Amino acid sequence: MTQHDHRQTRLGTLDVIPLGTSAAIPAHGRHLSATALDLGGEWILFDCGESTQYQIQKAALRPSRLSTICITHLHGDHFFGLPGLLTSMAMNGRIEPLRLVAPERLFSLLFEWPGLERLPYPVEEIALHASLSKSLVVETAGYVIEARPIEHRVFCAGYRWTEKPGPGNLDVEKARAMGVTEWPDFKRLKAGEEVRVEGRTVHPRDVISPPPPARAVAYITDTRPCDEGILLARGARLVIHDSTFGEEHARRAVETGHSTAREAATVAGEAGAGGLLLTHISARYDSADVLVREGCCVFPRTAAATELRPVRLAASEAEDSISPYSARG
Amino acid sequence: MTQHDHRQTRLGTLDVIPLGTSAAIPAHGRHLSATALDLGGEWILFDCGESTQYQIQKAALRPSRLSTICITHLHGDHFFGLPGLLTSMAMNGRIEPLRLVAPERLFSLLFEWPGLERLPYPVEEIALHASLSKSLVVETAGYVIEARPIEHRVFCAGYRWTEKPGPGNLDVEKARAMGVTEWPDFKRLKAGEEVRVEGRTVHPRDVISPPPPARAVAYITDTRPCDEGILLARGARLVIHDSTFGEEHARRAVETGHSTAREAATVAGEAGAGGLLLTHISARYDSADVLVREGCCVFPRTAAATELRPVRLAASEAEDSISPYSARG
Repeated sequence: MTQHDHRQTRLGTLDVIPLGTSAAIPAHGRHLSATALDLGGEWILFDCGESTQYQIQKAALRPSRLSTICITHLHGDHFFGLPGLLTSMAMNGRIEPLRLVAPERLFSLLFEWPGLERLPYPVEEIALHASLSKSLVVETAGYVIEARPIEHRVFCAGYRWTEKPGPGNLDVEKARAMGVTEWPDFKRLKAGEEVRVEGRTVHPRDVISPPPPARAVAYITDTRPCDEGILLARGARLVIHDSTFGEEHARRAVETGHSTAREAATVAGEAGAGGLLLTHISARYDSADVLVREGCCVFPRTAAATELRPVRLAASEAEDSISPYSARG
Repeated sequence: MTQHDHRQTRLGTLDVIPLGTSAAIPAHGRHLSATALDLGGEWILFDCGESTQYQIQKAALRPSRLSTICITHLHGDHFFGLPGLLTSMAMNGRIEPLRLVAPERLFSLLFEWPGLERLPYPVEEIALHASLSKSLVVETAGYVIEARPIEHRVFCAGYRWTEKPGPGNLDVEKARAMGVTEWPDFKRLKAGEEVRVEGRTVHPRDVISPPPPARAVAYITDTRPCDEGILLARGARLVIHDSTFGEEHARRAVETGHSTAREAATVAGEAGAGGLLLTHISARYDSADVLVREGCCVFPRTAAATELRPVRLAASEAEDSISPYSARG
């Protein structure tokens, strides 16, 4: 199986599943920060606040298929669920390797804890240094993950997941009309090679349609609105952004290194994103409705991240499930 | 206010509130180990598995009134909720001192973690060494807490909370009949002093009834049934005991350092306990009914610890809310 075939098999629709949307402390039934990106055959976890392993059970995500955990920063509400998740997977017999991307200090702390010194599965440690001179942190056959430093009170990384562009579809009828008849020639064209038939050259570009646009998802919290956030969000189909406060507490957002809903919406708008999910909601809001309203004024495709309610990203953007009203119905 | 008055004011009914009853991993809606003992004005927490801070919210226990946390051992399902609970209390403005009783290794690990290096409230560290040569670990005006080493795969402490005996009630009519008329003399008798009236001596024992029997609650997990467990449970009004397995898995209980429901019931019976709550239930049981049935054969006042359902211990044992059927109705 080639890498491209592998990707094509794996990535159909993508589901973004908010698992924890509360800022700092649990409140109003909201849990601490965690978001799953379900690719079908595997899934990726951004942040792992306390109780994430419970939310994973409720979302019916299979822990054995969790390939990668990306931690943004070392405030407890973003990673205190890691020890429990990692040890529970060990007790449940996990043997599959796990990729863990996090600020470097996490690794020495975490693996000192009882039960974590010797996990029965390999953990690939991808340690982020404060300089973050290289943004590409993970590359697989099907996708890349980038990390960039965003603006919080401590070193904090925002993430962007991007699928690799597909090979496009071979127009078989068109190829036949141009004289291509042999299976090995079709295969060469799909692999990007020219073929010669009846004395002339058929180029892949003649018979292969452009691939559908690659989807990207950005996870940007905790942070002030910032240029690095816009870079991460550039053209993303979905941006999940810090939206701790409403406009009435805009000053508090500055003081604490967070964003208002309006600021999150401004980032999504400047980045030309497809949709925005507001997350990391302060305990002062029993409902995120006011935040959604404030965000929608700037960027209409704004919704509140709602725990265990997936946002589905189809191959075509027009079919995405996010809408400005999805959190308000 | 004297110490005795303080105690009398504080301790009316006691509530034992199971917060987490699952063994090792969360399962069937059960959470990881934690049990609250609510004394009214303050409460005590035994173990603090992941998500305990969420369960505390659901139980409407006030974190500012949490006086003492007792951790049994350093398996993650018994303490991975501590970092979150301690930092959330800090963020909520706690200034009240907190007592933390735990195996000594915990302290160096815990207070290295981000957010825990400088808590804004004082933490009294009571470190348990494996020898546990002295069983008394906490003494206040109203109660004592003892810890004893029980039999698990790693060093593990069982706990016993015992209220201090009250002063008994002064029989005012009887004292008057014996010639006591002045308020300072009543006060002296209550304080345990003799008084002389009309040329003769009135002893406190003549006019003060014996105090009601002091209540004790034992928390004994994770462990094999053992002598130290029986000592902790001796005459306790309620014993919360490891009951990971049913009889069919008795061998597994031996291998893993746990108890069956029947073994837990045997401990409660030998100790002459008032009631038994089974906890630390294996994920293989979607219901604890079979464990309760097996326990009741040996010790009829056995029930399953049911999360957020308090067991009320009244001043008189006959009024306690535990019954062998409370978990089966």
